[in-house]
Amino acid sequence: MRKTKKINLTEISKPLKTELGKFNKHFKIALKSNVPLVDLVTKYILKQKGKKIRPLLVMLSAKLCGGINERSFRGATLVEMLHTATLIHDDVVDEAKERRGLPSINAVWKNKVAVLMGDYLLSRGLMLAVENKDFDFLRVITASVKRMSEGELHQISRTRKLDIDEKSYFKIISDKTASLLATCCEIGARSATDDPQKIKALVDYGENLGIAFQIKDDILDYKGKSKITGKPLGGDIKEKKITLPLIHALSKADEKEKQKIIKKIKKSSKGNNLQDIVDFVDKYNGINFSNTVAEEYIRKAKKALEIFDAAGRETLEQLADFVLQRNK
Amino acid sequence: MRKTKKINLTEISKPLKTELGKFNKHFKIALKSNVPLVDLVTKYILKQKGKKIRPLLVMLSAKLCGGINERSFRGATLVEMLHTATLIHDDVVDEAKERRGLPSINAVWKNKVAVLMGDYLLSRGLMLAVENKDFDFLRVITASVKRMSEGELHQISRTRKLDIDEKSYFKIISDKTASLLATCCEIGARSATDDPQKIKALVDYGENLGIAFQIKDDILDYKGKSKITGKPLGGDIKEKKITLPLIHALSKADEKEKQKIIKKIKKSSKGNNLQDIVDFVDKYNGINFSNTVAEEYIRKAKKALEIFDAAGRETLEQLADFVLQRNK
Repeated sequence: MRKTKKINLTEISKPLKTELGKFNKHFKIALKSNVPLVDLVTKYILKQKGKKIRPLLVMLSAKLCGGINERSFRGATLVEMLHTATLIHDDVVDEAKERRGLPSINAVWKNKVAVLMGDYLLSRGLMLAVENKDFDFLRVITASVKRMSEGELHQISRTRKLDIDEKSYFKIISDKTASLLATCCEIGARSATDDPQKIKALVDYGENLGIAFQIKDDILDYKGKSKITGKPLGGDIKEKKITLPLIHALSKADEKEKQKIIKKIKKSSKGNNLQDIVDFVDKYNGINFSNTVAEEYIRKAKKALEIFDAAGRETLEQLADFVLQRNK
Repeated sequence: MRKTKKINLTEISKPLKTELGKFNKHFKIALKSNVPLVDLVTKYILKQKGKKIRPLLVMLSAKLCGGINERSFRGATLVEMLHTATLIHDDVVDEAKERRGLPSINAVWKNKVAVLMGDYLLSRGLMLAVENKDFDFLRVITASVKRMSEGELHQISRTRKLDIDEKSYFKIISDKTASLLATCCEIGARSATDDPQKIKALVDYGENLGIAFQIKDDILDYKGKSKITGKPLGGDIKEKKITLPLIHALSKADEKEKQKIIKKIKKSSKGNNLQDIVDFVDKYNGINFSNTVAEEYIRKAKKALEIFDAAGRETLEQLADFVLQRNK
């Protein structure tokens, strides 16, 4: 009986406030090092407050499967360290100057420190898992890091050739984004249960949620206002990343119009032709189509949860709705 | 009864020719991926033939501890993947244009692909270890990656302040270089035995060998001819990396001369003052001193092997002599 259907992440996280506080402590302790420069950078990382969706997924999945325990906190710490490592490396490769409203690590300390800090966080996270004999976590997380880097590399090679269709789009976003969200759910579930049916249900939830999450991200690149997302409009087009809204429009246009648009995309690096491309996507309902697809994945995500009690799964359902509604 | 004391790496590797061939096959198979761009880059990596010192150490250690087996090959593959990953990341951070006589990955495919390929190789290697339940390998290797990145970060922060003494120098080179060589020996030993005395002996050998290896590398920066090492003379000085030959000379000079040289180092980025700094190091016998220290570590490395049969340890002793004699 909520007054409005608008969903807020802080609202969703509220029931887990104590646990998230405990997670933050775990994360802070895990980042500690003997090298002053490492401590300086990690202190800075802790200031860049992220949405913490990944640790939240770990804990909600653990809760649904029997309860949050020490292993759940370790799992949440592991995924957040890993996610942070990949963000730092992403900023190096994208030459991004900002992250979460603060200058990026590479902007403050240069590429060298950023690449090494990413490697440090990655190995530190995996080391914690080894030390605690969380070998099941290690299996899913190393496979996930591999899929993430493969997905990104796949996207780069397709992008360079401007050759992408729906099938490779879904393969790419499943590898680069959905794999880690599925991993969060799997790790949370495994920290609390060894029931394969429950684990599978949460992996399915995470995978579908992740795909919807990335589609939504790609839609925001066409629709989002820079002030809200912190990202400039049309950044993907400038990088020649062809995402679902554009793939759909290209599939609907005739050959002649398609070639005309492809020519415009090739010349769009400096922001030229952006409006023409956005108009082309609008003409063929690329955004509406993509929203419908995202809704479908959210429906699948929620369906995967049906083996659980209705009361227990409510927060994960809200999180799914949030992914659909988010505007940043 | 060798005619000359000059030691050659090909000579040392000869008794392991079959095993190195088998390792190369393992390595090639492990690199395989479903993503064409990944395969293209790995094919290129296989062309950049390195010295393969790390797999060699794994196999020689295994042989000394009872014999080379499947787990030794997996260990050798793991360390070589990891070493390759760190080299690729190093080239990004150093903006290096060449590696092993060929253009570097970042020079051919840009930074983005290089950072991601490093992450891919790192996770792929660790994944193989997880899949094969080589959890003992994982423990030593993740700790080693952590030490390597910490060592590099430590060096950067000290370098930026031009503040480095012998103690921090040895801590840094032990973390950034010796840790992986010790890890190779430990992994080789563990693949063949669980005798803690033998494992410890080989870790000690690897750690001391690694320190001597890095001191020698730092000496070559002052002495080596570019044609042999493939590196320009004085590269470290230009980057303001203060290594043992210079640390020693600075410790011998009086305060006035020291400050004069520090001023020259600060202004050396573009290759100015290089000869003055080299002359200063010569004046205080910085190279001879460093060679004596490297010899001492090689002596310690060999001493650690004394618990083994004289015949069995011969190749590892030759490898230690090679590290001392190498001129590239």
